Amino acid sequence: MQLEKYKIDEANQQKAAAHQRKFDYVAGEVANLDDVMEKLAAFNIAIPSWALGTGGTRFGRFSGGGEPRSLEEKIEDIGVLHALNRSSGAISLHIPWDIPKDAKAIKALAAQHGLRFDAMNSNTFQDQSNQAHSYKFGSLQHVDKAVRKQAVEHNIEVIKQGIELGSNALTVWLADGSCFPGQLNFRKAFENTYESLEEIYAAMPDDWKMYLEYKCYEPNFYSTTVADWGQSYMYVNKLGPKAYTLVDLGHHLPNANIEQIVSLLMMEGKLAGFHFNDSKYGDDDLTVGSINPYQLFLIFNELVEGMDARGMNHANDLGWMIDASHNVKDPIEDLLQSVEAIKIAYAQALLVDKKKLVEAQLNNDAALAQEVLQQAYRTDVRPLVAESRLRAGGALDPIGVFRSLQVRGNLIKERGEKTVATGL
Amino acid sequence: MQLEKYKIDEANQQKAAAHQRKFDYVAGEVANLDDVMEKLAAFNIAIPSWALGTGGTRFGRFSGGGEPRSLEEKIEDIGVLHALNRSSGAISLHIPWDIPKDAKAIKALAAQHGLRFDAMNSNTFQDQSNQAHSYKFGSLQHVDKAVRKQAVEHNIEVIKQGIELGSNALTVWLADGSCFPGQLNFRKAFENTYESLEEIYAAMPDDWKMYLEYKCYEPNFYSTTVADWGQSYMYVNKLGPKAYTLVDLGHHLPNANIEQIVSLLMMEGKLAGFHFNDSKYGDDDLTVGSINPYQLFLIFNELVEGMDARGMNHANDLGWMIDASHNVKDPIEDLLQSVEAIKIAYAQALLVDKKKLVEAQLNNDAALAQEVLQQAYRTDVRPLVAESRLRAGGALDPIGVFRSLQVRGNLIKERGEKTVATGL
Amino acid sequence: MQLEKYKIDEANQQKAAAHQRKFDYVAGEVANLDDVMEKLAAFNIAIPSWALGTGGTRFGRFSGGGEPRSLEEKIEDIGVLHALNRSSGAISLHIPWDIPKDAKAIKALAAQHGLRFDAMNSNTFQDQSNQAHSYKFGSLQHVDKAVRKQAVEHNIEVIKQGIELGSNALTVWLADGSCFPGQLNFRKAFENTYESLEEIYAAMPDDWKMYLEYKCYEPNFYSTTVADWGQSYMYVNKLGPKAYTLVDLGHHLPNANIEQIVSLLMMEGKLAGFHFNDSKYGDDDLTVGSINPYQLFLIFNELVEGMDARGMNHANDLGWMIDASHNVKDPIEDLLQSVEAIKIAYAQALLVDKKKLVEAQLNNDAALAQEVLQQAYRTDVRPLVAESRLRAGGALDPIGVFRSLQVRGNLIKERGEKTVATGL
Amino acid sequence: MQLEKYKIDEANQQKAAAHQRKFDYVAGEVANLDDVMEKLAAFNIAIPSWALGTGGTRFGRFSGGGEPRSLEEKIEDIGVLHALNRSSGAISLHIPWDIPKDAKAIKALAAQHGLRFDAMNSNTFQDQSNQAHSYKFGSLQHVDKAVRKQAVEHNIEVIKQGIELGSNALTVWLADGSCFPGQLNFRKAFENTYESLEEIYAAMPDDWKMYLEYKCYEPNFYSTTVADWGQSYMYVNKLGPKAYTLVDLGHHLPNANIEQIVSLLMMEGKLAGFHFNDSKYGDDDLTVGSINPYQLFLIFNELVEGMDARGMNHANDLGWMIDASHNVKDPIEDLLQSVEAIKIAYAQALLVDKKKLVEAQLNNDAALAQEVLQQAYRTDVRPLVAESRLRAGGALDPIGVFRSLQVRGNLIKERGEKTVATGL
Repeated sequence: MQLEKYKIDEANQQKAAAHQRKFDYVAGEVANLDDVMEKLAAFNIAIPSWALGTGGTRFGRFSGGGEPRSLEEKIEDIGVLHALNRSSGAISLHIPWDIPKDAKAIKALAAQHGLRFDAMNSNTFQDQSNQAHSYKFGSLQHVDKAVRKQAVEHNIEVIKQGIELGSNALTVWLADGSCFPGQLNFRKAFENTYESLEEIYAAMPDDWKMYLEYKCYEPNFYSTTVADWGQSYMYVNKLGPKAYTLVDLGHHLPNANIEQIVSLLMMEGKLAGFHFNDSKYGDDDLTVGSINPYQLFLIFNELVEGMDARGMNHANDLGWMIDASHNVKDPIEDLLQSVEAIKIAYAQALLVDKKKLVEAQLNNDAALAQEVLQQAYRTDVRPLVAESRLRAGGALDPIGVFRSLQVRGNLIKERGEKTVATGL
Repeated sequence: MQLEKYKIDEANQQKAAAHQRKFDYVAGEVANLDDVMEKLAAFNIAIPSWALGTGGTRFGRFSGGGEPRSLEEKIEDIGVLHALNRSSGAISLHIPWDIPKDAKAIKALAAQHGLRFDAMNSNTFQDQSNQAHSYKFGSLQHVDKAVRKQAVEHNIEVIKQGIELGSNALTVWLADGSCFPGQLNFRKAFENTYESLEEIYAAMPDDWKMYLEYKCYEPNFYSTTVADWGQSYMYVNKLGPKAYTLVDLGHHLPNANIEQIVSLLMMEGKLAGFHFNDSKYGDDDLTVGSINPYQLFLIFNELVEGMDARGMNHANDLGWMIDASHNVKDPIEDLLQSVEAIKIAYAQALLVDKKKLVEAQLNNDAALAQEVLQQAYRTDVRPLVAESRLRAGGALDPIGVFRSLQVRGNLIKERGEKTVATGL
Repeated sequence: MQLEKYKIDEANQQKAAAHQRKFDYVAGEVANLDDVMEKLAAFNIAIPSWALGTGGTRFGRFSGGGEPRSLEEKIEDIGVLHALNRSSGAISLHIPWDIPKDAKAIKALAAQHGLRFDAMNSNTFQDQSNQAHSYKFGSLQHVDKAVRKQAVEHNIEVIKQGIELGSNALTVWLADGSCFPGQLNFRKAFENTYESLEEIYAAMPDDWKMYLEYKCYEPNFYSTTVADWGQSYMYVNKLGPKAYTLVDLGHHLPNANIEQIVSLLMMEGKLAGFHFNDSKYGDDDLTVGSINPYQLFLIFNELVEGMDARGMNHANDLGWMIDASHNVKDPIEDLLQSVEAIKIAYAQALLVDKKKLVEAQLNNDAALAQEVLQQAYRTDVRPLVAESRLRAGGALDPIGVFRSLQVRGNLIKERGEKTVATGL
Repeated sequence: MQLEKYKIDEANQQKAAAHQRKFDYVAGEVANLDDVMEKLAAFNIAIPSWALGTGGTRFGRFSGGGEPRSLEEKIEDIGVLHALNRSSGAISLHIPWDIPKDAKAIKALAAQHGLRFDAMNSNTFQDQSNQAHSYKFGSLQHVDKAVRKQAVEHNIEVIKQGIELGSNALTVWLADGSCFPGQLNFRKAFENTYESLEEIYAAMPDDWKMYLEYKCYEPNFYSTTVADWGQSYMYVNKLGPKAYTLVDLGHHLPNANIEQIVSLLMMEGKLAGFHFNDSKYGDDDLTVGSINPYQLFLIFNELVEGMDARGMNHANDLGWMIDASHNVKDPIEDLLQSVEAIKIAYAQALLVDKKKLVEAQLNNDAALAQEVLQQAYRTDVRPLVAESRLRAGGALDPIGVFRSLQVRGNLIKERGEKTVATGL
């Protein structure tokens, strides 16, 4: 299904007056309005192909209805998202969950929905039925060269498919690690992994980037072979200029200061971008902004400061992706909320009075620095984000429209009540 | 020193127009405006007597200037706070750091500043120079009955002083616990502590409350004898109807869901109230709202819901106190920010559309429930809080006025550059 | 398959001399040898019926070969375990994963292996194919009375099956909770859950116990409705004398002092017993004793002290169960290691010089208290545990015998390379 | 005071027979006995000069009696330690707490006790009375160049003093960081710190090493400028071959896998060494081995493996220091327990059957790998450590001798009941 624009416009009509009042008010409060609106318009967040279905835990999965049964239907769903919020104009493919049979046709279908292909994701944390070697004890780290070779070749295959789709980045997330002390030799696991990554790196076209994700634990519960930003940084630093560290917000030990990590990786020119989500305990993969929206703002505050300091293009020079699991919400609604939360945090960060902040910092004026940050954060920027959507042809109230147009109901009619999308 | 009202009024004049624009806008967005304004007006947060000086860590303390040198000067400082924000109309005394020599005179001085005496705090975690027995190995839990007796008597003395000052609650925070496995017997430590608490409880007038605070660790690093809400609940449940559990936001293990604890303690009628602060790692005692303002809002959301469900008076039926340490900010500015953060969270909670929220809950509609909560949280309620201050005779911009009137400079002139207030 | 005793004896023969040297040495170091040996002999740990297969995570499962395909085969596997270590003489059944079709026959089969039926486990965290209502949004807490009723009836059904098998306890672990702020009302979730538990409680025979397990998070990632020991304690306290709190070692927030919780629950007569496992991050469900064996010892130290103080029977008055997930080890080997770790910790705790410890505590002599505990902990008690097994007809080296007799190879021959046991 | 050797010998006499029985037994169990005994004999742990007094927290300090009042008395105390355990033959000086007035005399005094001077510690986290600029807002990171200069010069002064004493390493631990979001710019704080470190590095003699310690929080509670191993690694990597990362066991976020960090830093040739202590919650600075002795063993297992892989000298190529705070134990007893725990863990690590472990790893045999590690860990190696002490002229039972000779009592007689050593 595809959302017809006139229906969105109709819905917007009904909200127009109320919105205008809000927008006018906030616009009057914002000094750099044009800059903010321009940057918001340019900012897109990629949707991973595995995020359109209901997620689960090791204790079970409770599927919803109308989940996409094929890559084509996933693209349709992202099309719906993008039609509503005009900020989800990219798809991040996961191989082998979503292998395109006909790359050209898939590319055309995506283009039809205004979507491009962002970073490709390889998967060496699950065994596929036709696989020669098992990843039970790791992939790129494996003690057996044959297993490593298989995993390297899979990654190279993913790069090839990405090239055909017009992607230019490979995200490598490894479950590799160990569950018990003594199970592996940390140094050798590092060396094997590095050697494998080198081979993958060598297979990347010159204009590609490798995003190396880190994660402190799960599914291994004693050690992970790319466990923290420092380890990822060691790998990407050795690999070369095309390798970068990817930050997933849920992959840290309790209480980690993620915004500082982000700032330092940018300083080194080694930040790849993000897998956005939120969490309270571990890698909970909750809706972005649902647990600690201030932290998200603080991260964007560092991003804006750091990108500007390096003269980077906000929209394109880093990878912006969601990676969440939708266990109890409709996946599309969950994604709409996540994208909204990201754009709100970004807008707030754009509102920070940098001059005043720097001044406060030079005076060690912690109270004033907090006032400056919270002045931006406390501002209700939702009308700015809504206006940006409106101007781009999206919905003032994406979830409202999604519900009033009964999109999920229609998807269930079309696809059935019992469908399970590939993914976690 | 005392802030003259006309100076505050003058400062307000300059901000009046801008404020009016903001207030008019937000007022137009809030359905239950009168209710919100009324409740905000009634809401006060007590300031602890130890919070007017610069705090420190075991690694050192870097005092600021003009710190109060006596209880009288502490009351003056709270008077300044209250004159600015009209929401700090109570003082929570700490004994023996601030023993009033002449209760009547102190009470009169406080009244002059519009202040009353909230919960009294005993201290059995430090040795005083004239003390017969040491608290090195605990106080109410101590293996030696003589030490317990001394600690009990100190608490009873604190109650007596509180009675004279018009207070009606005793806050008991115990550092009691152990640093090493085997150092104490958990059960016996509990039993000793309970017996001691019973004696203190028996000495309280009928209209008094005992607030029993819990804390998971520090200054003991293996066990604490009132370590979590469950343990405090066990004590207060056994003690009787005048005993309640006090929640200090920084006293939990990483990732604890504090709002659920708050809700359940209210359900049982056993919530005493709060020591407000914020933290990222442990009991960091940072400015309220400086690290995770959304959590603060979620706590207030439970409070409002729970107090309404039990027909409680928001302003008076629970104890509202700040307990923070001001290591790098001016203590008065820090407290102004803390009180502001609390009132913002409270205002946001008052804005929650309860009917819609209950409906969403009955439908297991997690996405809508989040929309309802965030609709309230994302609203910029600062103009409501400012208007409430204005109406009560306070400052539209308390920190701005504090700075433009050079209050700290004047205090330094009066008290000197090198003053150290009693406290941590 | 069933392990023939003569094969175990043969294997023991080869190790006899080396063992004797070790045992003689340690026996000479232990003052209360007879008491220790007697208690070790009596001590059994129940094996859950879901633990015989390879476990997995939300990212995948890598099954091993020869996994039991039926309840009968699970009993056989536990029979193998018990034959080897003579300490796994009980089975804890999970319904509906392992519904006995013919209770009498199953009971007879178990008896043949020397096994009895320990606590029964209900499951309301997964939907079964024939189920009227979904547990997606909880079971005993559910806003819909019909769902709660279904969950209550399931529990009552489990009790009935337990009665037929000779069990006398019901373990209730609830995944109930929420993933997002606002999703549910904490108080109402508690009240619904309590009401449901009351109905289940009422259906229990007089000689039964209810074990109410708590868990801070997973599979819900914002709140859990029985989240910590304090909450479980509130429920069981209200329910009555047949309700107790079950401690699973992996269900706590980071850094929790579990041994203190254990001690206090015993003080209140409300400790049900344990689900043993070990963990580094969350509910990792690793082999008992593989990550922090000293903590396990400290827990047993409290248990022995507390049971003795209450005159309890070590072997029978609390529930001893393993609850681990075997993702990278052979499940039977993993269980052998877990039982061994438990018995070692128990033996060490029995070695603690209580008199000296109490003396040190009365003198606040933390250094000596540590010496006393570590004197027991550092002692190599493995020969005592091995001797206990030997005397009971088990193997001196259970894993060695399991391997040399190629038990797994035989199971694969019998059951096949691709079998997947029911469970997580 | 100095412990006379004949008194130690007398005490040893009484324990000789029992010890011999134990040693003979364990010696018979250890294949590589000579190697183990030789390495144990060579292994010394440095004692920091601030560790001889009672430590405290921000809530208070409860001093013991007989604390050293001068550097000379601290050296005496370490002399006592070393006489008892023959494994504390080095002192790690802290400046300005312990500035030697006459380096030559101090060196001679130390030599008299068999002590050398290990790494020097600078202090830029506290203000000294004569100091021009305050470190309230940091030192090497400070926004003001003058403050940085002062801090750099202090470090250079410490190097100079170290040279005179025969030390060859500088430990830099920085409290630098921030308490609130926005207070500082992470990148600029890094750059300032790096520039400052470069100047200090340049002032080091060629045969010196810089040990750069990291710590996640405290005394700053939002960010620290050398916050984790990755950040320290970034600094030392840029600084050059004389700079290394120092690991303090208590400076990590909850659940960190320290042994993996240790292994990777060794792989990179960037591990400086250790500040040993133990902890349950944060930087608790408890006695080494008092909370999680298995983790300590796992760290030593990596150390032994890594040092052997690089052909390093166990005793000299890394820095071994204790950094603990003795709040409730006699400092000397606490240090005796800490050194003992370290030597036990080292001895256990030396016992690991490396060949079997590597084999298990190559087979992904996690169960066997655990058996191999625990075979070493479960062995009671205390008789080996005691024998090593005995052969070196130390005490079989150091704490026993310390008590029976009433060392503390004598120190109190000599120094008084109310003495407070410099330090935390």
